Amino acid sequence: MHTLAERIQKQDQRALARAITMVENDHPDKLSLLSDIASIKQKAYYVGITGSPGAGKSSLVDRLITHLRNQHLTVAIIAVDPTSPFSGGALLGDRVRMHKHFTDPGVFIRSMATRGSLGGLARSTKDAIRVCDAYGFDAVIVETVGVGQSELDIMKVVDTTAVVLTPNSGDVLQIFKAGIMEIADLFIINKADLHGVQKLKTQLREFMHIVDPKGWVPPIVETISTENKGIEELWQKCTQHRDYLSETEAGKQKRQDQLAYEVYELIREELWKEAKAFIEQDPAKQKALKQTKDPYQLADDWLSEWKRERGR
Amino acid sequence: MHTLAERIQKQDQRALARAITMVENDHPDKLSLLSDIASIKQKAYYVGITGSPGAGKSSLVDRLITHLRNQHLTVAIIAVDPTSPFSGGALLGDRVRMHKHFTDPGVFIRSMATRGSLGGLARSTKDAIRVCDAYGFDAVIVETVGVGQSELDIMKVVDTTAVVLTPNSGDVLQIFKAGIMEIADLFIINKADLHGVQKLKTQLREFMHIVDPKGWVPPIVETISTENKGIEELWQKCTQHRDYLSETEAGKQKRQDQLAYEVYELIREELWKEAKAFIEQDPAKQKALKQTKDPYQLADDWLSEWKRERGR
Repeated sequence: MHTLAERIQKQDQRALARAITMVENDHPDKLSLLSDIASIKQKAYYVGITGSPGAGKSSLVDRLITHLRNQHLTVAIIAVDPTSPFSGGALLGDRVRMHKHFTDPGVFIRSMATRGSLGGLARSTKDAIRVCDAYGFDAVIVETVGVGQSELDIMKVVDTTAVVLTPNSGDVLQIFKAGIMEIADLFIINKADLHGVQKLKTQLREFMHIVDPKGWVPPIVETISTENKGIEELWQKCTQHRDYLSETEAGKQKRQDQLAYEVYELIREELWKEAKAFIEQDPAKQKALKQTKDPYQLADDWLSEWKRERGR
Repeated sequence: MHTLAERIQKQDQRALARAITMVENDHPDKLSLLSDIASIKQKAYYVGITGSPGAGKSSLVDRLITHLRNQHLTVAIIAVDPTSPFSGGALLGDRVRMHKHFTDPGVFIRSMATRGSLGGLARSTKDAIRVCDAYGFDAVIVETVGVGQSELDIMKVVDTTAVVLTPNSGDVLQIFKAGIMEIADLFIINKADLHGVQKLKTQLREFMHIVDPKGWVPPIVETISTENKGIEELWQKCTQHRDYLSETEAGKQKRQDQLAYEVYELIREELWKEAKAFIEQDPAKQKALKQTKDPYQLADDWLSEWKRERGR
């Protein structure tokens, strides 16, 4: 077993941070490290919290951390910022609010930011969740901004996906169109002291009726994070969903489907790295790329060539 | 050459529609059809129009079509709806506004919707653009909703990316965070009769300053699509950018980079299809997927196996 995996199991936070950096940087030892990590007994409950910017996710998560710590539960927070490659996670002002938790050894906070590679953010976030799990946290909370493909992808590995909405934000249609409705296990109406809560609830129920969930019907929880209201109920609904997952066949199936999905994804990623190297390490191909007018022909030719070379 | 490619070149709209359906369904002949299509002399100018739902993109595009038709230019519109697999493009109400153009043979309108496959929407949209180009349209306009990875990806093949904003929408930060700022060639402030235009312009310029564009500095155009205002200026700025692309080295480089990017993407997609078949056609692998607790190990094993089988 990797020394790093052993150190993580012994709750060494520096080792934890280093392992996450390794998955972020797509280190050559990544797969074997993650395989070691997967063999460490896991117990963490994975919660994903998503929603539009401005919905108050960060302060909600902040309150949730406090609530969990009061119950002596340890928690890792992975804050995903799909910012541009350029800004590289510079817009983390929101996180400052979580500052008071930074000195608490029962809390681990990590920001992940896009580093340019397509799909890379979702992949490294999912790996980071597993790494935190191996450390032994009771809960791993992933906070994502927005409703893009990366977010949808990350939600494929969590146990419970909570979607944060605010009254009068007009978010519901956007969330429906982005395909979030089908993956939500829980809706949070934050800033529930604002006008329009009933209307939002009605809208949510209408869209839910269209999506027609089988088995688990996502509950709607009202919170006012600034006043610390609704946080206990939020966690209650989360754990009810966790129980649903562990006690029903549908729940067990969901977890297994997530693992299978990851196998596919890991293979796709590795193959892609190889094909990329095949093109990038050949000067003649680099030259052809600079002159082509027909990408389809070039792709077809190189695929055949790659297969022939493999077949030798 | 494919009969279908020949028929498209002869401006057969039924052949055009059929070819797009072929790329959408990932037909086995797709690559060779697209290669034939790439060999047909191309002249179309590709414009991408993106922005949040509610920014008025559809009515803006509607006005733009009328403007282009008055100049006897032909135009294809590809409306991309990244709706959930479930809704499959049911929310196309907006398009109804474009109804009056449906009977005009100089206009072709096509909606593309997610069909479940990850990344499939961006890929088939890009192929559809090429198919429309081969038909001989003067302009191909791609309208996308939202600012996800798919949209960013589609914008990699257009000549000019126009981002639609509205005053007081708070869109600027979101657009910046999504990485749209770096790829925008033109900003449109629609609903410019609303209060807050000056503030939005100031914000845009501040963010642009951070991004620090080299060469082409994205102009800001004000429009009121409901009153048909600013549409002429919008088209003027678009064509100025087109001239910049064709007359400068940086512009030529951008077009070539786009083609090279497509080669990579096509190869990635094809390899992925093969690897997927490798897993799905083996009952033993399907069984292992249903039991695994370590996706990393499984991925690693199967990649080695795939390579060995290839090496035979």
